[in-house]
Amino acid sequence: MSGTRSSFRAIRDEMARRIAERLWLPGALIPGEEVLAREFGAARATVNRALQELARAGLVERRRRAGTRVALHPVREARFVIPLVRQEIEARGAEYQYRLLSREEASPPEVVRARLGLDVTAPFFHVRCLHLADRLPYQFEDRWISLDVVPAARRADFEDVSPNEWLVEHAPFTDAEFTFRAAAASAEEAAVMQLREGEPVFVGERITWLGERPITLVRMVHPSSHRMVTRL
Amino acid sequence: MSGTRSSFRAIRDEMARRIAERLWLPGALIPGEEVLAREFGAARATVNRALQELARAGLVERRRRAGTRVALHPVREARFVIPLVRQEIEARGAEYQYRLLSREEASPPEVVRARLGLDVTAPFFHVRCLHLADRLPYQFEDRWISLDVVPAARRADFEDVSPNEWLVEHAPFTDAEFTFRAAAASAEEAAVMQLREGEPVFVGERITWLGERPITLVRMVHPSSHRMVTRL
Repeated sequence: MSGTRSSFRAIRDEMARRIAERLWLPGALIPGEEVLAREFGAARATVNRALQELARAGLVERRRRAGTRVALHPVREARFVIPLVRQEIEARGAEYQYRLLSREEASPPEVVRARLGLDVTAPFFHVRCLHLADRLPYQFEDRWISLDVVPAARRADFEDVSPNEWLVEHAPFTDAEFTFRAAAASAEEAAVMQLREGEPVFVGERITWLGERPITLVRMVHPSSHRMVTRL
Repeated sequence: MSGTRSSFRAIRDEMARRIAERLWLPGALIPGEEVLAREFGAARATVNRALQELARAGLVERRRRAGTRVALHPVREARFVIPLVRQEIEARGAEYQYRLLSREEASPPEVVRARLGLDVTAPFFHVRCLHLADRLPYQFEDRWISLDVVPAARRADFEDVSPNEWLVEHAPFTDAEFTFRAAAASAEEAAVMQLREGEPVFVGERITWLGERPITLVRMVHPSSHRMVTRL
């Protein structure tokens, strides 16, 4: 540490180094904020900010009265915000376009019913649409919407507003399951996305529920140039 | 709602329905816990639990003294816990095996240096290894470790303990970037993973930093049967 007043970054990195090099052992209580502030020649608020960052990164655990300990088992979580696809595209600085491909009342095939845990046929909308970024296919959305759970969907034509945006407005959910995986583009996906059949695609799948009742199942297909990125 | 004492699930679903159908408008204050408990014929603790679930799902916002409001802009986050690959495999009920493929001091190629933001050549370990589940390739790990930031890595042979586990123990990080995407298996990846070249693979990439200094860059390749799943 330099003799000048230390930045919270310098303090954070120095404390992380002590944890990494086991000068501060896992589970051990580390010195109090006042002691650290004196040692680092910094304001107590600066030390506090550095400790906050280490806690956020999972390196230390802070308890209001019990002080700060080096984490025994750092648990790391990556968090992905689930934005509207329009916002996701616009956030990249690209122009958003939306194209409805089809919308019809239909019975979900066996594979969809199985994923939704439905044992009887119920009325669903099947909606297919394309989201474009700067006129290039960005996401192919293939969606089933329960008309039992969201009867208002019958009045939505999805010509101008995508089912993604419409559902966020009209069908709040209590539970959701997200799945991400790689797959080979089907003939239909290749045609819609202007890819070769069998080319790798990045697939997101989402099911939402209102209580025990499934609202929607959506398959979102992206070209292999797609990146899902988050920072900790 | 039935006349019998309501479960927290039934209360949660009823409140979600009122939000979905705009009986309770976005931003509006909803009735207090005591009022709801009387209406639903439930204990106040049961209503509290239902409200907690709605808040966790992002449908309502609770303020200690100001009461509970319907969320104006529900923000949804998917959280993925970052486990050790060994724990991930064992949690699936499969037998874990680990195989070191290579470990050598080497200069990162230009593409790796660019990802790490390094403008000069620094000493790195390049480690390649395979994680197996029930004797089948589960993840191919191709990793660069900075020997400047983690000098202790020179003494690690990675014969029995994977770099994944070794780094969790020895190299706490303050910052991380996670990327997920689909790709076509390279010739090397296909050989190691027993896949065909060009077959879709699910790729995770992780960079960790100690302050401003990059610790490691790892590319984790999974077959297309891999699923990354989380629930909200």
